[in-house]
Amino acid sequence: MRQSQLFGKTIKEVLKDETSINAQLLLRGGFVDKLMAGVYTYLPLGLRVLNKIENIIREEINEIGGQEILMPALQNKKDWKITGRWEIDVMMKVKTFFGKEYGLGWTHEEVVTPLAKKYIKSYKDFPFSVYQIQTKFRSEKRAKSGILRGREFSMKDLYSFHTNEEDLDKYYDLAKEAYFKIFERVNIKNKTYLTYASGGDFSKYSHEFQTLSSAGEDTIYICEKCNIAINKEIVENNQPECPQCQNKNLKEEKAIETGNIFKLKTKFTEAFDFKFLDENGKEQLALMGCYGMGPSRLMGTVVELFNDQNGIIWPKSIAPYQVHLVHLGNKEEAIKEAEKIYNALQKEKIEVLYDDRKESAGVKFKDSDLIGVPLRIVVSEKTVSKNSVEIKRRNEEGFEIVGIDKIVGIINCHCEETERA
Amino acid sequence: MRQSQLFGKTIKEVLKDETSINAQLLLRGGFVDKLMAGVYTYLPLGLRVLNKIENIIREEINEIGGQEILMPALQNKKDWKITGRWEIDVMMKVKTFFGKEYGLGWTHEEVVTPLAKKYIKSYKDFPFSVYQIQTKFRSEKRAKSGILRGREFSMKDLYSFHTNEEDLDKYYDLAKEAYFKIFERVNIKNKTYLTYASGGDFSKYSHEFQTLSSAGEDTIYICEKCNIAINKEIVENNQPECPQCQNKNLKEEKAIETGNIFKLKTKFTEAFDFKFLDENGKEQLALMGCYGMGPSRLMGTVVELFNDQNGIIWPKSIAPYQVHLVHLGNKEEAIKEAEKIYNALQKEKIEVLYDDRKESAGVKFKDSDLIGVPLRIVVSEKTVSKNSVEIKRRNEEGFEIVGIDKIVGIINCHCEETERA
Repeated sequence: MRQSQLFGKTIKEVLKDETSINAQLLLRGGFVDKLMAGVYTYLPLGLRVLNKIENIIREEINEIGGQEILMPALQNKKDWKITGRWEIDVMMKVKTFFGKEYGLGWTHEEVVTPLAKKYIKSYKDFPFSVYQIQTKFRSEKRAKSGILRGREFSMKDLYSFHTNEEDLDKYYDLAKEAYFKIFERVNIKNKTYLTYASGGDFSKYSHEFQTLSSAGEDTIYICEKCNIAINKEIVENNQPECPQCQNKNLKEEKAIETGNIFKLKTKFTEAFDFKFLDENGKEQLALMGCYGMGPSRLMGTVVELFNDQNGIIWPKSIAPYQVHLVHLGNKEEAIKEAEKIYNALQKEKIEVLYDDRKESAGVKFKDSDLIGVPLRIVVSEKTVSKNSVEIKRRNEEGFEIVGIDKIVGIINCHCEETERA
Repeated sequence: MRQSQLFGKTIKEVLKDETSINAQLLLRGGFVDKLMAGVYTYLPLGLRVLNKIENIIREEINEIGGQEILMPALQNKKDWKITGRWEIDVMMKVKTFFGKEYGLGWTHEEVVTPLAKKYIKSYKDFPFSVYQIQTKFRSEKRAKSGILRGREFSMKDLYSFHTNEEDLDKYYDLAKEAYFKIFERVNIKNKTYLTYASGGDFSKYSHEFQTLSSAGEDTIYICEKCNIAINKEIVENNQPECPQCQNKNLKEEKAIETGNIFKLKTKFTEAFDFKFLDENGKEQLALMGCYGMGPSRLMGTVVELFNDQNGIIWPKSIAPYQVHLVHLGNKEEAIKEAEKIYNALQKEKIEVLYDDRKESAGVKFKDSDLIGVPLRIVVSEKTVSKNSVEIKRRNEEGFEIVGIDKIVGIINCHCEETERA
């Protein structure tokens, strides 16, 4: 992509109204635009990142047998009355001119449970799991954390269905593993703790995934022996101790909730009378688990974790482009060489953002740091005279001088390397 | 995909409440589920089709320089007050518990125009175009045409921006061509007419794309000499004649509006005071075009056009799978051979739905016809004894007997063939 043509521009000035780092950098970098508090447009750069995160999630959820569907945002009042959740504050309510009233989905148990009931009758059809990556809405009174807490946001919600607890437990553990694979792929695994949370009416515990960050709205208590944590709710209700080793020496930290998983058991299947026929022809209530993760919140979390005073430092796996090709100066030879390299990289299917603008080196370097593409390649009169380019990693100081014929090889090596977090 | 594990099941019975063919077949085939009138869940089969349509649209719009973004569904009342469209009936209104009011987007001029104004200042930044594939909402009083007219539906909306009319005209023609490429790829081009419609305040004409179908809610008047049409609105306001050759002998037909394009010129840029600096440093209003097309409506249209009494006949380009592998009987040899073929096809990256269920031949064939995958491969005791399979095209009578070692080659040929509409 030629930067001269890219829709969305960097903003030089610090934005005084934005208190969160992710909002500050994503807005300034031209990744998102804020329409209203908690409501964002994803610009081309931002949408590329969001799509990459969604695809990573999709791949890992497909891997544990999740089947992708797409449920509507508009919710049926009748079904939410059944579960007693129609009146909950977070639900936005929609009115039409002909007097019909809908809710806007902030979760989808009230859709997926009756849906599953419609198709699934026999124990032979279990277990199964369906998920969607879909836009959710929440009546958030405060929406000041950038894309960490939106009024409209992208969500992956997975629902699994089982005939017995053992089977639910097994899938629940699989989902846990899938979640850590996702965190690993977006490079936040080593800051993310499996965190015990209240299990509600049916289970002792549910689990959150909490990623350490000063931007987090949650407080967690880490057992450094077991490498797990408990959330505030549990600490408030009980003597704070590790649920695995009973260690009472826990470390308090701020964290962002980057996922949660919950054994719903029969909470919703009972409400909707979702029963199946077991091996003996007897009716049984189905058991259920739910597993949430917000791609847009993950994106915000990554920005909170990977930045410096100059801008974002994207992990390779979700960077909008792998290479930021920058040409400096007005000399025709340098421009010609940069164009040649741009074409060569595109031919190699390397994702490249090409800063072909007529701007000073200072402006270009500042923008490049702000946008945070992992690898920067600089082509200037000086480098061309040596038949070379300068290559710099966004997450390291200093640069290398590299022969033009070596560029593709170096990029391919770079892309294959494990991330250095 | 193993059909025994596929979420969503076929429905044998004709659905009495569904008057439209697309709703009837998509619901019965397990492509969609109806949550409420005009509000559908896309099940795994349906989501595959929808995604394929969206990707075809995406490719063709990228080809004419559209940059993909994602604007929010929640709309800012203030901006819709500016254009005087806040009170229009089709807008669903959202209320939050803390007293905030939003609209739900049924189009996005009120978002994209202020957005473009924020970033674009100089004539050098023109022309540019942005689009999204996003969920729209409409307060439709009647919603009885299946996914042809939803209250919640998928929409591609493209917006282009220009410094002068000539440039707008040029892009408008490009968009027209892109639209016909899309119609060609989803196999409805030969039934789709460029249809002259009223141009509103600023242009003599806008254009719709109307696809002939008895399910259509629109009436168009075709000039068979020029292969174009005019819509009802124009006929009602004027002497009906072809705008190109003045032919008055027009043919009346029912049609589905599968796209529309509109030269908005300064209608919205004036409302939002979106000006740029021209070559002489003078402020000028930007010009604008908008281009709509609904992927879910396209999907419904294809079903209306390609079906028989037994079910859907998907064009290859958007079929949920290319091959429906069906095994018959309980003989172990046949099952073993079917499994082998299934694995071999997957290895070849051929999209295959594998009916591995323990059902009768009658049930399996009925389901296969209903689902409408282009190529059916039957493996039975009889075929295996001849080291062969039966291959049948969904859009043809009769079948071929083919040696097992020839299957992959035949499928690859089939997939490369031009569609026979």
